[in-house]
Amino acid sequence: MIETDILIIGAGPAGLFTVFEAGLLKLKCHLIDALPQIGGQLSELYPKKPIFDIPGFPTVQADELITNLYEQIRQFQPGFTLNEQAVSLKKLDENLFEIITDRGTVHQAKAVVIAGGLGSFVPKKPPLENLDRFEDSGVNYFVKRPEDYAGKRVIIAGGGDAALDWSIQLANVASSLTLIHRRNEFRGALDSVEKLKKLKHEGKIQLITPAEVTGLYGNGKLNAIAIEKDGITEILETDYFVPLFGLVPKLGPIAGWGLDIDKNAIKVNNALDYGTNIPGIYAVGDINTYPNKMKLILCGFHEAAIACQSIYQRLNPNKKFVLKYTTVSGVNGFDGTRKEAEKQVVSTIE
Amino acid sequence: MIETDILIIGAGPAGLFTVFEAGLLKLKCHLIDALPQIGGQLSELYPKKPIFDIPGFPTVQADELITNLYEQIRQFQPGFTLNEQAVSLKKLDENLFEIITDRGTVHQAKAVVIAGGLGSFVPKKPPLENLDRFEDSGVNYFVKRPEDYAGKRVIIAGGGDAALDWSIQLANVASSLTLIHRRNEFRGALDSVEKLKKLKHEGKIQLITPAEVTGLYGNGKLNAIAIEKDGITEILETDYFVPLFGLVPKLGPIAGWGLDIDKNAIKVNNALDYGTNIPGIYAVGDINTYPNKMKLILCGFHEAAIACQSIYQRLNPNKKFVLKYTTVSGVNGFDGTRKEAEKQVVSTIE
Repeated sequence: MIETDILIIGAGPAGLFTVFEAGLLKLKCHLIDALPQIGGQLSELYPKKPIFDIPGFPTVQADELITNLYEQIRQFQPGFTLNEQAVSLKKLDENLFEIITDRGTVHQAKAVVIAGGLGSFVPKKPPLENLDRFEDSGVNYFVKRPEDYAGKRVIIAGGGDAALDWSIQLANVASSLTLIHRRNEFRGALDSVEKLKKLKHEGKIQLITPAEVTGLYGNGKLNAIAIEKDGITEILETDYFVPLFGLVPKLGPIAGWGLDIDKNAIKVNNALDYGTNIPGIYAVGDINTYPNKMKLILCGFHEAAIACQSIYQRLNPNKKFVLKYTTVSGVNGFDGTRKEAEKQVVSTIE
Repeated sequence: MIETDILIIGAGPAGLFTVFEAGLLKLKCHLIDALPQIGGQLSELYPKKPIFDIPGFPTVQADELITNLYEQIRQFQPGFTLNEQAVSLKKLDENLFEIITDRGTVHQAKAVVIAGGLGSFVPKKPPLENLDRFEDSGVNYFVKRPEDYAGKRVIIAGGGDAALDWSIQLANVASSLTLIHRRNEFRGALDSVEKLKKLKHEGKIQLITPAEVTGLYGNGKLNAIAIEKDGITEILETDYFVPLFGLVPKLGPIAGWGLDIDKNAIKVNNALDYGTNIPGIYAVGDINTYPNKMKLILCGFHEAAIACQSIYQRLNPNKKFVLKYTTVSGVNGFDGTRKEAEKQVVSTIE
């Protein structure tokens, strides 16, 4: 069982920055995220895109912002449960919550901050009859460990960035790589399109367009798919079929935790502390809603700071909260490090 | 007369970032600040100190944050009235405000955002009887234009950073530079202390410690001061006397504008839009107060974003507010520039 002070659900920018504000108050954090890496949408949907509205950055690439945020919180030694989705939440006591993931990992914490962004990203699935029979036994919606595909026959379907990028990455890993798309045109970064052309000419990627996958075959484990091209059906043998048709955000299991929900977002008290209707559970960032809410990363940062202050007061009802300025007080990491402004000297001048 | 959409009082980080959020909504801004440069406290009090709690910056030096913020807003061509204090505010109409400075500059705007930080910085004055007679005719509390001191005899008093730094800077400008401090010890950056020692040994700075200034003399214009050292009074001829005893923040004229004030801060509606009790006037950053307020720069950024959204809705009651993401929509500068993410290509792959 994992125990911590604050359990943060969602490791996007708002969740990550919560670790910093909690750390200043000497509160330890642990983060759960359904994605295999930190950064939320920024890492999963647009890692290489510039963001122009993070205060103090005329421009910052999404993945660089995440790298910076991680660098900023590292000293507070956050724990991570990645690649697992938080599915159940139970309030055991006034200041004790239990959160269990889809893989059964149990977490207990004194407070919970939900920083789930738009929710969990759920893959758009192709409309194939027996799809669920092959999920995790040949059909994958994410490429989590490229090494799993080493020496295997892989068929990817899709026409966007994810399909292009993973085709390129797996072309040199898989024994054969086929990319199927229902249109002739692909939509992606210029660089990806160029790389794909090159791999095609080198014979490392086979391209089939316009074509659609119409059937899946196998006994327990996938071993072939049917495709339809120009009205003709063809059977292709394969070890893996990876449909990359995009992701849609779903609030998911959170919707069943007894929280007040309004249009797929969690209602919070923005006049006070971004707390939800359940005392001890807060929601920050894109997943919360209140009058005049703006789904901006910079708003999540503010909400995280206020929520941590409230948690501190909940857990230390008799202590007076004193705001400390990092420039004046420095930052004490849980790893023993200390950051501080250069000390002034007091000296006579001879 | 200066006309604009949003008049921002205070050019610290919260005021500067307001320009960005307003600019995204195509609203023009003009800023007033009593200090001679932008950046508020960060430029005036601790330009070279690191800040550790700006989200996305593991560390950032205060003056660099201001440089970055200016770079971020430059495209929206903000106007500036610096070195002037906003002294009067009048609501002429539902969406028309008039603000006049201590130098008589008249500004009219459709909305006002007060981002005045801790208020105006007022110098601590030495307890000298006829001090006010020589203010601006020999006695200065700020060094605004070093060139004014060229070839003049200058006496500086004080023992902190400002006294050290200005002594060093003016030593090569003034015909003579004397630094007086009531203690033998100075408190400042190691580097400044070292530089001062060097200038003293080169004969460019005369140091008198421990000593106090006890009188000012002159006919209309200052021409000498009295100092007391070891119980003996001495008269020193001089053109300028610059006491640098530190600054204290004062809410100042803002206190008389009819705004709800609580403990030197302006009360705002944090549940809605950071508006004050006067519709059309908002307060963001350290100058406002509400339940659980944290005086953090990052909170000012959020408040500025929400306030601009509210101003947009006030000025465009029939338009639906649609939040645009800079990564998706790009940023259109008022100077004709455009920032945007690299376009995706749509291409067949031959």
